[in-house]
Amino acid sequence: MSRFFTTKLSALKPYTPGEQPQDMQYVKLNTNESPYPPSPKALAYARDAASSLMLYPDPEYKVLCAKIAEVLGVQADQVVVGNGSDEILDFAFAAFCEKGAVYPDTSYGFYPVFACMNGVSGTEIPVGDDLSLNPADYAGAGKTVFIANPNAPSGVALSLSDIETIVRSNPDSVVVIDEAYVDFGAVSAVPLTKKYDNLLVVQTFSKSRSLAGARFGFGIGSPELISDLNRIRFSKNPYNVSRTTAAAALGALEDEDITRENCRKIMETRRRTAERLKAMGFTGPESSTNFLFIKHPEIDGKELYLKLKERGVLVRHFDKERIAAYNRVTIGTDEQMEIFITTVSAILEEMK
Amino acid sequence: MSRFFTTKLSALKPYTPGEQPQDMQYVKLNTNESPYPPSPKALAYARDAASSLMLYPDPEYKVLCAKIAEVLGVQADQVVVGNGSDEILDFAFAAFCEKGAVYPDTSYGFYPVFACMNGVSGTEIPVGDDLSLNPADYAGAGKTVFIANPNAPSGVALSLSDIETIVRSNPDSVVVIDEAYVDFGAVSAVPLTKKYDNLLVVQTFSKSRSLAGARFGFGIGSPELISDLNRIRFSKNPYNVSRTTAAAALGALEDEDITRENCRKIMETRRRTAERLKAMGFTGPESSTNFLFIKHPEIDGKELYLKLKERGVLVRHFDKERIAAYNRVTIGTDEQMEIFITTVSAILEEMK
Repeated sequence: MSRFFTTKLSALKPYTPGEQPQDMQYVKLNTNESPYPPSPKALAYARDAASSLMLYPDPEYKVLCAKIAEVLGVQADQVVVGNGSDEILDFAFAAFCEKGAVYPDTSYGFYPVFACMNGVSGTEIPVGDDLSLNPADYAGAGKTVFIANPNAPSGVALSLSDIETIVRSNPDSVVVIDEAYVDFGAVSAVPLTKKYDNLLVVQTFSKSRSLAGARFGFGIGSPELISDLNRIRFSKNPYNVSRTTAAAALGALEDEDITRENCRKIMETRRRTAERLKAMGFTGPESSTNFLFIKHPEIDGKELYLKLKERGVLVRHFDKERIAAYNRVTIGTDEQMEIFITTVSAILEEMK
Repeated sequence: MSRFFTTKLSALKPYTPGEQPQDMQYVKLNTNESPYPPSPKALAYARDAASSLMLYPDPEYKVLCAKIAEVLGVQADQVVVGNGSDEILDFAFAAFCEKGAVYPDTSYGFYPVFACMNGVSGTEIPVGDDLSLNPADYAGAGKTVFIANPNAPSGVALSLSDIETIVRSNPDSVVVIDEAYVDFGAVSAVPLTKKYDNLLVVQTFSKSRSLAGARFGFGIGSPELISDLNRIRFSKNPYNVSRTTAAAALGALEDEDITRENCRKIMETRRRTAERLKAMGFTGPESSTNFLFIKHPEIDGKELYLKLKERGVLVRHFDKERIAAYNRVTIGTDEQMEIFITTVSAILEEMK
């Protein structure tokens, strides 16, 4: 830190994104991107938008918000757009966390970082030994609740009734449900936003909609919560989503059938991959996401990660005690998972 | 505000961007966009990047930072990238303003908003009656200094030696020079970043590089300042710039001759427009930007703005006492300025 850096943030530990090495071509299964390209309309709209890049976007993003509302079955004034869903989460930490925030101790690594950045007192609630969340731990929390559903990196989902219990038991606090991975087998809480004024659901286009590089996410809540978040957005970056990204997002929403088909393929590949890993002695929680979180009794998590990387296969290992035995493996194409399985087999074989 | 909104931000007054009405086609001279399209390489690179949108960008933006460094004559570790230059300004308010911030009372409207958002005590320093900044007002400020050079909405530039005096006289505070409009006739302070460790220069691709809709800006400073800003970036949004935007920015930098030619044309149109407005009785400071800030003894600023809007010409009026007599008029193409001048003439004629 330079001598000018504020002491208020001296304890800040920035988020560590998954590595994006540029040195060689890897089978990249470490950042939960989709192995399938963006939809034809997403591509076409993004390319068309390029020629009007000299003009600012509509800061209200009216067309895009209306389309999101239509696809998700809500009103347009229930939608706020972000430069990735991370930005929406950051806005929520800025807007709603005066009494502090709670989140699981094993979850998306950005929650404690956003808490620190926004001067919010954050409390981590331990997940169970099986990495699952106990909804009772969040009932009547009296603080803003952040839950990724399905959770990361475990891949475990809560049921909609568990989510509703948490929302209902916290009538005076906002409950943020981060549904980055919801399209791979969990149930969305979006319909509950009509019933509860304290529920904010956050989704991203980075996973199921194959647009990680476009940076787009959104929040759904009551018109009052959304108005608050737009107040923050207009105080940070009213043009927070580029024209090409807004266009790509609109295109993807007009190609929902392709998104659904890609999710189906990924879930099918996940099922097959999970079976084969189980047969090889791996264990891990049941995944409702586009990744598996796995460990093996005969090899340390970090060692497996490093050996895979040496052989050109990138998975994600977290240097965190509770989950150090595990690796998080993104579900790629069948071909990519074949390479992954074959490489893991060879590594295990060599150890015998 | 909802009942959940933090009282810490209850005084927050969000920024008001220039209107972007969708009801009809206007001659749009209100948000300082370039009337010229992005460069061919900017367009081609953006379109090419679309096909890899399923992958996250490189969070270090190494290729882009190296190119910016090359074009601006600095080192790559002196560059930080942002989702528009607003994001870099916000990062600077978060990182460097423990002792408070100072900025002119008539300047970019986002400085007080960022101060509030970041819990920074902000002090406004009045500009002179001619809307110019007195460098002596900022000497030894003992707080972080934010100066737009040229300033907005006046269009007035300080000399490089004035800027250097401010930087030199504040050795223990960061001085942020916001050069959004520098390419239209002012002198950049970028070379001073090698000499002073407390200088941060911020630039945008929204004006001279015709990429307002792509959202790209950057900061240049000492490697230590830049490392601090990246610390904030990795705590907010490590993938803050989309793949298509990073690609468009790279393309624009490879077409620097086109940027220079567009700036030359805009400055020439500005000269002609200013002459004609002067002949019509308008006054205003000398502009070093892509806009003119003008008033007329016979018509109120707001009235002129409204009458122009009725006739399909959009300029920017600020409801702020000190500058209520003025309108800010973006320099468009010669054809657009012809329409503007003709429309203004007709309005003045009708008043006789």
